[in-house]
Amino acid sequence: MRRRAIVTGLAAAAVVFSTAPPSFGQADPLPSWNDGPIKKAILDFVARSTATGGPDFVPVAERIATFDNDGTLWTEQPVYFQVAFAMDRVKALAPQRPEWKTLEPFKSVLADDKAAMAAMGEKGLLEIMAATHTGLTTAEFSKAVNDWIATARHPRFNRLYSDLVYQPMLELLAYLRANQFKTFIVSGGGIEFMRPWTEQIYGIPPEQVVGSSGVTKFVLQPDGVPVLMKEAKVEFVDDGPGKPVGINHFIGRRPVFAFGNSDGDQQMLEWTAAGTGARFMGLVHHTDAVREYAYDRQSHIGKLDKAWDEAVRRKWAVVDMKNDWKVIYPFELK
Amino acid sequence: MRRRAIVTGLAAAAVVFSTAPPSFGQADPLPSWNDGPIKKAILDFVARSTATGGPDFVPVAERIATFDNDGTLWTEQPVYFQVAFAMDRVKALAPQRPEWKTLEPFKSVLADDKAAMAAMGEKGLLEIMAATHTGLTTAEFSKAVNDWIATARHPRFNRLYSDLVYQPMLELLAYLRANQFKTFIVSGGGIEFMRPWTEQIYGIPPEQVVGSSGVTKFVLQPDGVPVLMKEAKVEFVDDGPGKPVGINHFIGRRPVFAFGNSDGDQQMLEWTAAGTGARFMGLVHHTDAVREYAYDRQSHIGKLDKAWDEAVRRKWAVVDMKNDWKVIYPFELK
Repeated sequence: MRRRAIVTGLAAAAVVFSTAPPSFGQADPLPSWNDGPIKKAILDFVARSTATGGPDFVPVAERIATFDNDGTLWTEQPVYFQVAFAMDRVKALAPQRPEWKTLEPFKSVLADDKAAMAAMGEKGLLEIMAATHTGLTTAEFSKAVNDWIATARHPRFNRLYSDLVYQPMLELLAYLRANQFKTFIVSGGGIEFMRPWTEQIYGIPPEQVVGSSGVTKFVLQPDGVPVLMKEAKVEFVDDGPGKPVGINHFIGRRPVFAFGNSDGDQQMLEWTAAGTGARFMGLVHHTDAVREYAYDRQSHIGKLDKAWDEAVRRKWAVVDMKNDWKVIYPFELK
Repeated sequence: MRRRAIVTGLAAAAVVFSTAPPSFGQADPLPSWNDGPIKKAILDFVARSTATGGPDFVPVAERIATFDNDGTLWTEQPVYFQVAFAMDRVKALAPQRPEWKTLEPFKSVLADDKAAMAAMGEKGLLEIMAATHTGLTTAEFSKAVNDWIATARHPRFNRLYSDLVYQPMLELLAYLRANQFKTFIVSGGGIEFMRPWTEQIYGIPPEQVVGSSGVTKFVLQPDGVPVLMKEAKVEFVDDGPGKPVGINHFIGRRPVFAFGNSDGDQQMLEWTAAGTGARFMGLVHHTDAVREYAYDRQSHIGKLDKAWDEAVRRKWAVVDMKNDWKVIYPFELK
């Protein structure tokens, strides 16, 4: 899907730019980005950092680019997609758990009582995450994720969740990789929730996905076959100050390029900015209620407040989704 | 150093094989390995797993190869090199810590009292690790490691520790990478101790190094510059059953090729073996007291006992260092 979308995007861009090509004889690598300061900043950064012998040259080994996932690479409204997965999984598991019919917070989920679900709070959500994400092997969980991602649909768009990735960011990922950047996800989302599909959807292999994780335990089964059991214990929360920690832990190298969309990404951008040499820090500002969603300082999901202020003060790139992005989703190109 | 060593190795092999080249018109990719069942098993595995359309073909994305470090890629006697680093660091830090002159276990280290050092036990060693590995930033620690690896010398060989890597394994790493395998270290050693030099010495970048780790904390300094502080708390021990856990956590994909040398690698090999399709499991058996060291079931370092029995039973490759390796160290080729 990804490759076709990009090719289609390039074709579409060729039509748009047919009277005014962006450069002589070269296809625009970011056809879904409107011309403007953000697109220019990206193109300039990549040109400078890959110019051999130039003052801002970055050796290939150090071309580490990190991207938040929810709200940066795909939509995160009306709830994080991993929460939607957990709710759907409660329903899928219900036949094996008859006691859930009368037990909160599961009862509300099974009754599709949206008011009660919205009011369940963090405690209820953690109970649901534990019940749906632990007590099984990593292979079983991975299969559950794959089954869900292949079939579940977003309530507003009636599209597969994996259709709700941002076309401009797919182009940016491909553009960076074409310039020998290694692209990583650094997300507050669960690492085992993302890894089954990031390679197919984003071209990012599992070993380049950093995320929150639970404890797993090596168990040699009676038949001698080993499995990894997912236990009900949080191991690492890859959010806020946890993002630089996760980057150091998993990657061991400071990024030169980082993109986020919320206050949870602020420290990742600060950590990226604190290195020496050329670097790029970006935020996606959700400003398009018509094509996607519009939210920032007051949002309960993907709140963008302090990180925005810092971005403005330090002149980091802030994408105005409505004006900077020609299309939001790949399916708009078809 | 690595590249020169390999090139020299190939040249040396060309002389050795000048009357009987291993194949027509192709240089032997493993010139420091004697012909025999282990070398044959490696060559066969790589041929089968990369044969497009063949029954054992492994897609490039799944060509994950994991290597233990201590005793598998470099020497681990008479003490793990990270322990030698810690001892040297006690001496380096002593001027700033005058109380250590009279405080055990530091006193024995500063007095070079080898009997007392050998008797200090795990508690003493943990105190030394905490005193030398924590309470500083990741950047400061990385610099300390780099300074040490560039200057410290092994007591028996009077060589830089980084000279004591195994030439046959350097060739194996390069051979796998030439066949589009992604090579990882999965070591019980400290991840922050290895990452500063693995790229230069082994060609393995920091993001492909899995190891034991301590907790780090994001701290925004008063001047606004963020640092990561290394805290005195163990986060993850990447040994024994921790190795499959670490592989799942960092890589998120099961290896098809794994090499270790001790019981601490047994579960990594079991985890590798439990996948479907072509796979290779190997152990280095230290049998050469003249050129390196000879030890196995009774050793306090790198004990090879249960994993050896399992390897024999399951027909995993067991390298007999004395007979399978033509040379041990790169400097033997010069």
